[in-house]
Amino acid sequence: MKALVINCGSSSIKYSLFDMSNEKELARGLVEKIGEEESVFTQKSKKNNIKISQKVKDHKEAFALFTKHLLNHKTDVLANINEIKVIGHRVVHGGEKFYKSTLVDEKVIKIIERYSSLAPLHNPPNLVGIREAMNYFPNSKHVAVFDTSFHHTMPQVAYMYALPYHWYKKYGIRRYGFHGTSHRYVTIRASELLNKPINEVNLITCHLGNGCSMAAIKNGKSIDTSMGFTPLEGLIMGTRCGDIDTAILFSIAEKENIGLKEMDKLLNKKSGLLGVSELSNDVRTLLESADKGNKKARLALDMFAYRIKKYIGAYTAVLNKVDAVVLTGGIGDKAKSVRKNICQGLEYLGIELDESKNNNCFEQETVISKDSSKIKLLVIPTNEELMIARDSIKIANE
Amino acid sequence: MKALVINCGSSSIKYSLFDMSNEKELARGLVEKIGEEESVFTQKSKKNNIKISQKVKDHKEAFALFTKHLLNHKTDVLANINEIKVIGHRVVHGGEKFYKSTLVDEKVIKIIERYSSLAPLHNPPNLVGIREAMNYFPNSKHVAVFDTSFHHTMPQVAYMYALPYHWYKKYGIRRYGFHGTSHRYVTIRASELLNKPINEVNLITCHLGNGCSMAAIKNGKSIDTSMGFTPLEGLIMGTRCGDIDTAILFSIAEKENIGLKEMDKLLNKKSGLLGVSELSNDVRTLLESADKGNKKARLALDMFAYRIKKYIGAYTAVLNKVDAVVLTGGIGDKAKSVRKNICQGLEYLGIELDESKNNNCFEQETVISKDSSKIKLLVIPTNEELMIARDSIKIANE
Repeated sequence: MKALVINCGSSSIKYSLFDMSNEKELARGLVEKIGEEESVFTQKSKKNNIKISQKVKDHKEAFALFTKHLLNHKTDVLANINEIKVIGHRVVHGGEKFYKSTLVDEKVIKIIERYSSLAPLHNPPNLVGIREAMNYFPNSKHVAVFDTSFHHTMPQVAYMYALPYHWYKKYGIRRYGFHGTSHRYVTIRASELLNKPINEVNLITCHLGNGCSMAAIKNGKSIDTSMGFTPLEGLIMGTRCGDIDTAILFSIAEKENIGLKEMDKLLNKKSGLLGVSELSNDVRTLLESADKGNKKARLALDMFAYRIKKYIGAYTAVLNKVDAVVLTGGIGDKAKSVRKNICQGLEYLGIELDESKNNNCFEQETVISKDSSKIKLLVIPTNEELMIARDSIKIANE
Repeated sequence: MKALVINCGSSSIKYSLFDMSNEKELARGLVEKIGEEESVFTQKSKKNNIKISQKVKDHKEAFALFTKHLLNHKTDVLANINEIKVIGHRVVHGGEKFYKSTLVDEKVIKIIERYSSLAPLHNPPNLVGIREAMNYFPNSKHVAVFDTSFHHTMPQVAYMYALPYHWYKKYGIRRYGFHGTSHRYVTIRASELLNKPINEVNLITCHLGNGCSMAAIKNGKSIDTSMGFTPLEGLIMGTRCGDIDTAILFSIAEKENIGLKEMDKLLNKKSGLLGVSELSNDVRTLLESADKGNKKARLALDMFAYRIKKYIGAYTAVLNKVDAVVLTGGIGDKAKSVRKNICQGLEYLGIELDESKNNNCFEQETVISKDSSKIKLLVIPTNEELMIARDSIKIANE
């Protein structure tokens, strides 16, 4: 039983093909720079790896291209497109409506369309992917898996902002949270690793990648998360500022004489690690540079860790009992020195890092806390694609 | 030895006269609605209370008015204005320059003027007060006491935002923090009450009044605080939103078709407890209304407490050892049910509220935690005026 997972952006399509009888990924690929003069197509599978540069006019052509190569006998992962029982689509924003993954029909498409105002950069291309896929794979079932839905269990006290109440009623201004599929995946894995039923496990999950967010998980459910109405809020990210004093905008807009569109871009694309370091949004580059004595690179990394520390404390207070802090995402599962920076000096909270375990952990499921640590530290590489595939198969079988 | 403390706003002057031989407040008064058709003057002292409604044209007239009544033989607190050895002026913003209270001269005035761009609503009237007072009390020394200076000890990792670095260099965009005089006063009192040298005491101080802010105090020094570049950031306040996703502005500005000036007003004047409850910015009103079943009043109060809980956790993480959480300000020292809401469910952090002690505490220095509580809970009514008077006398005597 095969499942295809699709993550469709405005100029890219990322996909993974799974054999769900054993949850094995058969192939994964990416079409980038769709619509540009030279698009790039890459696909990896056991038997062959492909890289092609050619013009791919639109998403329709992109679908044709990657399907052809999934069906290629050299790739040997798919004999017939009808083998794909279900296609799981990553959709960024499910608003207040979608609290779980959902079989796509015209009604569902209409609601996702309506939520485009909440995620103008993401939902429209997600919908393009759904529509193209429905044309291209008419015999498959299509399931939408939302980045927001895992956080649907947040209580009002956590999701409301102290803003005029009618903004919530009229415009849906509230905390939604994102990276839900990742937080959910690591929550399930953590409950298995801790050998504790999921509805009894309390966690603080940290997804640290290009985007970064944290969640407070109580009895297996998200009760708070650091990203808010948009992915701008919360932790410091590669190019996003995370939490700031909003009033800074009023001052900067006047001083720099720029409008809100420009400001939006500056906070989302020119801030974060890049903004502070004036060097890079990439933690690896910053670590190298900091080691060589670059003070702003050091500062950016220290601020990054400091902010996470504060959220660990905040969520410990809110949960009042924590089994484990889980680190995931490219930074969380690879960057040992960042993990050390985050986890040191939290002994009062009951968090004790085992430096040697931490140093030996790279992209694998590992307990990196000391045995005496009251709160465990777990590194769990995330697998959002598998999570989407699982949901899709489950829903297709219902 | 007498000291006068002056807090000069754009249309008001608040003052207190102290006898610093015993730190006793001799009189306090307020001229409100300066420049309006009917201004209001009130003064309280042991021997008489005064309330007068009359037009007070400008700050100069206000100085004349209250000085006359301080000198009034019925009030009997001041025989001659030359008895006032020193005048302590509250100044909101001391920027990065003023890390302690400072004797006022023309150079100091120029720097405060320069920082007006950081506090356009506050520093200019503060300066009007200083200039008028220097004219009116030419034989007194004048000392500026800054709301920001106590937070000058914050490390860079806490005061920097993850924004383009040159905004910090060029415009001074960083966390400054406010309410410093209050945080400092309760820090000193807490170290006395805990019988611990100030340079060994670790605290989380919560100033909960019209404005609300918290600070993390390590070895008697502020290392982080919730208000930032302006007093908008951090906790939920009467009419200020505190922490939000800044990107909400981009959405709301478009949807409501309003500019930044209007947005500034909405976030500072129409949000917070008032915005959520759609009823009042006053905690007393909200408590009454919530008791009668008003859900939005309940929500506003719960959000208020929840945010404080999160900051208690965040600062516990950062401090890694906390002697006490200190509650002050009108809400902190009076509203027992708000205190209960904040302090409940923090047992994992080592905070255990004693409900009966809490219920019996109203505006007085009290330990409201159980004896078994690892972190003590202290209620300490603040006294910013006395703190300013102390600083002023000390500096005048140097």
